Amino acid sequence: MSSAARFSAADHAHMARALQLAARGLYTTSPNPRVGCVIVRDGRVVGEGWHARAGTPHAEVHALKAAGDAARGATVYVTLEPCSHHGRTPPCAEALIQAGVGRVVAAMTDPNPLVAGGGISMLTLAGIEAEVGLMEAEARALNPGFISRMTRQRPWLRLKTASTLDGKTALANGASQWITGEAARADVQTLRARACALLTGSGTVLADNPRMNVRDFDIGRPPLRVIVDSALRTPVDAAILPALIACHHADPHLRAELEQAGAEVIELPGADGRVDLAALLALLAQRGVNELHVEAGAALNGALLAAGLVDEWVAYMAPLAVGDDARGLFTQPPLTTLADAARFKLADVRQIGGDLRLTLLPT
Amino acid sequence: MSSAARFSAADHAHMARALQLAARGLYTTSPNPRVGCVIVRDGRVVGEGWHARAGTPHAEVHALKAAGDAARGATVYVTLEPCSHHGRTPPCAEALIQAGVGRVVAAMTDPNPLVAGGGISMLTLAGIEAEVGLMEAEARALNPGFISRMTRQRPWLRLKTASTLDGKTALANGASQWITGEAARADVQTLRARACALLTGSGTVLADNPRMNVRDFDIGRPPLRVIVDSALRTPVDAAILPALIACHHADPHLRAELEQAGAEVIELPGADGRVDLAALLALLAQRGVNELHVEAGAALNGALLAAGLVDEWVAYMAPLAVGDDARGLFTQPPLTTLADAARFKLADVRQIGGDLRLTLLPT
Repeated sequence: MSSAARFSAADHAHMARALQLAARGLYTTSPNPRVGCVIVRDGRVVGEGWHARAGTPHAEVHALKAAGDAARGATVYVTLEPCSHHGRTPPCAEALIQAGVGRVVAAMTDPNPLVAGGGISMLTLAGIEAEVGLMEAEARALNPGFISRMTRQRPWLRLKTASTLDGKTALANGASQWITGEAARADVQTLRARACALLTGSGTVLADNPRMNVRDFDIGRPPLRVIVDSALRTPVDAAILPALIACHHADPHLRAELEQAGAEVIELPGADGRVDLAALLALLAQRGVNELHVEAGAALNGALLAAGLVDEWVAYMAPLAVGDDARGLFTQPPLTTLADAARFKLADVRQIGGDLRLTLLPT
Repeated sequence: MSSAARFSAADHAHMARALQLAARGLYTTSPNPRVGCVIVRDGRVVGEGWHARAGTPHAEVHALKAAGDAARGATVYVTLEPCSHHGRTPPCAEALIQAGVGRVVAAMTDPNPLVAGGGISMLTLAGIEAEVGLMEAEARALNPGFISRMTRQRPWLRLKTASTLDGKTALANGASQWITGEAARADVQTLRARACALLTGSGTVLADNPRMNVRDFDIGRPPLRVIVDSALRTPVDAAILPALIACHHADPHLRAELEQAGAEVIELPGADGRVDLAALLALLAQRGVNELHVEAGAALNGALLAAGLVDEWVAYMAPLAVGDDARGLFTQPPLTTLADAARFKLADVRQIGGDLRLTLLPT
């Protein structure tokens, strides 16, 4: 049965509100998922909550506290299945049972296949009506990274590029400031802020010496910065440090110097003297990275694309043309047929200032 | 005074209808402008007309015929100032006077500076209230080519490109069928059909042997095809022939062979052994070309862009990425600063099938 048939209009409205609340944690819940909760008694909202930060109460606990005695017999709308395990906080399913709620509607089950359904089972066993699947697509869209980490053991990789309409990121002489306008550059900050980690390559570090910081947002945590740097070319005074540096082979002297400068150096040897990118993503997932934001040059962009590791491509395009000798977006082995091209579908297109922003998903 | 203040809501509604009628001639009026006319008596539409084809009656004449005696004392809405000169048809201003109309509202004056205002003057001298400027921007947008030819003595040059998101028109091995989808390719036919002439370069003729025809539309005239071909490399059996071939210097033997095959060969020597593109545009304007549609390779695209001759760029983009070794959009001398980049503003963005279509105007 479709969710439209199974759930009422009021159910939809309350879950939509819970999704709104969940989004308040967009920049701060890392490595936890964004979750919102609304408690409704006799058609009236008696409690709301959202998860703000790892180590602080979950959305359900905030909402239960707000509802107090009114939670008894109430319906609880929550964007993610209530947890059933003791983590840094007690299980939410237990708290809901103790509060005596009458019904729980979750947008989606826990994406971790090892615990999925556990919270719902606890509730059902306690005699509470528990349903899953209301506005599930919207709930999943809130947490692509958490879902990816739980189901694929790798982060959701979001590639950001800024180019001209003819696909150039810089002139042949390297000039690139600024291709896109101020509004587009401010928009990029929202992507950085929502990510758990920011990744670039040593070529970009050497050429542009970026800080890769998060401006404009108080994310309440230091952003993890990661450099793909096969031969440890990152200078000890690079503005991006401290950072995690993934290399192919670490010369002990260079490693010691970089560690002194605040870097963590890890050897992840791949083919042809390059870093094993899949191994790097697995490592980042182990460290709790849900969404990985990439801003790099054509070499690393091309390697990620060729390896099929790009989950989302946010392409900012300035309405300029600079000619074929300028620098391109993706260094890749030559294709012999268009059938081998990386294909995307347009998920979103909008104008940001005078520039265009395309959000693309691989097909 | 703004046109909103000067003209009534009914005036706007009738002119909007006249503009709709004018657009019916989009594909067929060449080399004449697209013009529509509505005649209104006592608030009731008594006659409508539009110009369909050069050599046939103008919009006003059709509308007057439809109105008959009802034209007496009526208001005439016309998207372009009525003509005051004897061309292939008698002057429309005279016909309006003879019909005894009471008021004439024109969206814009004749763009030809030598005759502009002549029609309005004739009407005013005959005691008819005549006004200009209602929905002028919309009227001008109908006839960018006619206006360009009259005011700049060159056609409106519309450059069409089809590329990947990383700015590539073909793989390194030349494979390009198909980068964009069927819907985008069908959409291109509307651009070809509205143009007076279709331009490409000898490189494209040699590589792809295109017919450069107009499918799907009965435009009622053979489209003029033009090839920029400095050294007369066009084969005598090229599918694009007959065509006008602009070269730098015509070898007499090659010229004779191409003329035999239906080509007209014209020498327009420019710098460095290349064709003088500005001279070619002037020649095409002399021959009545309003809108010139260009589909070419990176060399000709880049030369037109560098010469500042692109008036409108319609960029189809397929959601693909193929890598930096593939073929680019614009061959141009290297830029040293982004300030020298060709800059556009986004006039329109829409999805055509699975592809994106951007309409860009130079800033």
